[in-house]
Amino acid sequence: MSTPYVEMSKEQLEKEYSIIKEEYNNYKSKNLSLDMSRGKPSPDQLDLSLPMMDILTGTSDYQTDIDCRNYGGPQGIKEAKKLMADMMSVDPDNIIIFGNSSLNVMYDIVATAFVKGIMGNTPWSKLDKVKFLCPVPGYDRHFAITEYFGVEMISIPMTEDGPDMDLVAEYVNNDESVKGMWCVPMYSNPLGTTYSDETVRKIAALKPAAKDFRIIWDNAYCVHHIYEDKQDSLLDIFAECDKCGNSDMVYMLASTSKITFPGSGISALATSANNIKDVMSRVTWQTIGHDKINQLRHVRFLKDLDGIRIHMAKHADLIRPKFELVLDILDKELGDLNIGTWKKPNGGYFISFDSMDGCAKSIVSKAKEAGVVMTGAGATYPYHNDPKDSNIRIAPTYPSLEELSIAAKLFTVCVKLVSLEKLLNI
Amino acid sequence: MSTPYVEMSKEQLEKEYSIIKEEYNNYKSKNLSLDMSRGKPSPDQLDLSLPMMDILTGTSDYQTDIDCRNYGGPQGIKEAKKLMADMMSVDPDNIIIFGNSSLNVMYDIVATAFVKGIMGNTPWSKLDKVKFLCPVPGYDRHFAITEYFGVEMISIPMTEDGPDMDLVAEYVNNDESVKGMWCVPMYSNPLGTTYSDETVRKIAALKPAAKDFRIIWDNAYCVHHIYEDKQDSLLDIFAECDKCGNSDMVYMLASTSKITFPGSGISALATSANNIKDVMSRVTWQTIGHDKINQLRHVRFLKDLDGIRIHMAKHADLIRPKFELVLDILDKELGDLNIGTWKKPNGGYFISFDSMDGCAKSIVSKAKEAGVVMTGAGATYPYHNDPKDSNIRIAPTYPSLEELSIAAKLFTVCVKLVSLEKLLNI
Repeated sequence: MSTPYVEMSKEQLEKEYSIIKEEYNNYKSKNLSLDMSRGKPSPDQLDLSLPMMDILTGTSDYQTDIDCRNYGGPQGIKEAKKLMADMMSVDPDNIIIFGNSSLNVMYDIVATAFVKGIMGNTPWSKLDKVKFLCPVPGYDRHFAITEYFGVEMISIPMTEDGPDMDLVAEYVNNDESVKGMWCVPMYSNPLGTTYSDETVRKIAALKPAAKDFRIIWDNAYCVHHIYEDKQDSLLDIFAECDKCGNSDMVYMLASTSKITFPGSGISALATSANNIKDVMSRVTWQTIGHDKINQLRHVRFLKDLDGIRIHMAKHADLIRPKFELVLDILDKELGDLNIGTWKKPNGGYFISFDSMDGCAKSIVSKAKEAGVVMTGAGATYPYHNDPKDSNIRIAPTYPSLEELSIAAKLFTVCVKLVSLEKLLNI
Repeated sequence: MSTPYVEMSKEQLEKEYSIIKEEYNNYKSKNLSLDMSRGKPSPDQLDLSLPMMDILTGTSDYQTDIDCRNYGGPQGIKEAKKLMADMMSVDPDNIIIFGNSSLNVMYDIVATAFVKGIMGNTPWSKLDKVKFLCPVPGYDRHFAITEYFGVEMISIPMTEDGPDMDLVAEYVNNDESVKGMWCVPMYSNPLGTTYSDETVRKIAALKPAAKDFRIIWDNAYCVHHIYEDKQDSLLDIFAECDKCGNSDMVYMLASTSKITFPGSGISALATSANNIKDVMSRVTWQTIGHDKINQLRHVRFLKDLDGIRIHMAKHADLIRPKFELVLDILDKELGDLNIGTWKKPNGGYFISFDSMDGCAKSIVSKAKEAGVVMTGAGATYPYHNDPKDSNIRIAPTYPSLEELSIAAKLFTVCVKLVSLEKLLNI
């Protein structure tokens, strides 16, 4: 058992500081070059999908409800709609298959709301003020889209059950300029939190002041479990919305980016018939169709929801040791020191770490100085502004176990170093 | 030699009408179902690219300047930039590789101009009026994009050399609300016209009243020759623009949609360094990258510009007989009758036909009634409004030669029928 830093005398702290400082300098002298910054699958995870590249050949049959090789089919081929619908627990009629990037689909939803409006409502570009609720910590690329369009972003603290719903309801139900909310409802980025049934019900029961209020329900990690025996589950948002007369309130997104190949997967939007019609009224002018050969490739490789589950279990086998390694190192190195807290998620791609207030930027900076790139401190908040300067997102999937062991240990050294500097007023 | 209809007496016309009417009714009784409406490659053209599906397998090397299987590379992989740059006669630094649809790239350019503005200029959504010049007849899907965004479209007549440049200059140089012009400069859709060197020079020498005036130079048919010995060539618009201080005026688009597989190809934007920077400042928020595996597949299959030329010659061998068949039938059936004119293009995907004024809609409608779908009359004009109601776009590539022979003959019967009805005031 180590003594928590706050219980140490000045002399003890100074002694500890000189030890940690030396440890840190040792790491620095190693000229490391490691990366724990982005939620990227590792090369061995990508290898899992290499057999997909043998699925379609020069002699394959490319005919489905349409010749997949030619123009057409802007809503996607029937088989791909079925596959993605099963994965997203919706009806295939409520699906549009898009290209390789669900982020692009979300961008287009916001862009179209600005320039054309949603379902005949006033385009957001004509309004004085457009606001989005942003559960924090959250996904930097969500916030980047709304920042790009000049949306005012309001941080909503995350609880163990999801976003603070009292606060959400206060904004959504009373402020007509609140037009949207970003959500990663399952294994959230970066916390790994899955919204509780009660939270989902409360979201569905919102009474938005704005007719065109929409929730972007980015179900990016819907099948991305880490454990076989500990799996979160998420309530069906559409069924709950239907009960509350909010059938058109949610756009759900998912993709195969972290199932097969990031950048060469397929993405899908699931939403109400009204929204499908509204979105297709844009898509029709935007493209003659997305990549149907890649849709077919995915369908023939993954087959069905069982196929996806089997494939995701292989990912889990590669990811699990990495999460456990980092969590073990955090426990061992920081467990008793009371200078940080972290979550143990059951799925997703991140470990969310909270340092003592005012330390995150320095920790990330120290890690970088010693050759380990972390996600920029503040990135998990709108405008990169973490008011407490405490949240750090750890992405353990990309490095090898060996690299990760070094990177995670160095990280804990940086946490100790910066915490000691704070306590010692250095 | 047949007698031109206008030189016929009323009796002769009536006699001819009863013959043609019977001929038309014979076709109707055949219950045909043929399609000459869209510029789609035929299945045998698609077969030419089937070997591309054997290029990448589970044991291929996916490493280029980046692991093509993972996230990243929003501007495209180096090899794909080189390939598309060579095809578009520009420097690879001036290229961004996008997804499967150049139409989508054009849509995004217009959408972004509306919501964010081009290079810091006022977003078009904040302006009272935005106008685009539309050379006519032109591509319906271009016009559809600007119509969707509420742009006022101004028709510019096409000459043998390209758009009427006196008219273009008058608008562009004097009206600040003229923000853009659609161009298909080579083997234009539907005329098959390639802009003359003088036209390209005049375009480059425009002195736009609007700082953010942009030409969308859709070079969709840049390698799409029909003949080996008769090939149009297009002057380098960028070199000419540079000479005139208009380096940022042109966005050039191209894709492999009609080289490999429509819907599963790759597209590219070629433009100035300033425009690249401006466009990337959006793309960065829009996506983590386009499909790099498909980029790699295309590079390894097509190899280089010579590879593209060899592949396009195979397409030409399949397309040429179809163009010649239709042109022969038009010559034989309508050559002497003075009831229509048409072009004999050296490339592209269309034959443009002009009927007597006021007959196009009826001709297309009669053809449809007899089971042959043509592109809707008027589609080649903004707002589907062909003021003379005379232009019809014939797309000969998709049907088989046998089908095409029937469809083209029926088309000439419809032209005769409707022309006779006009002359006889029926």
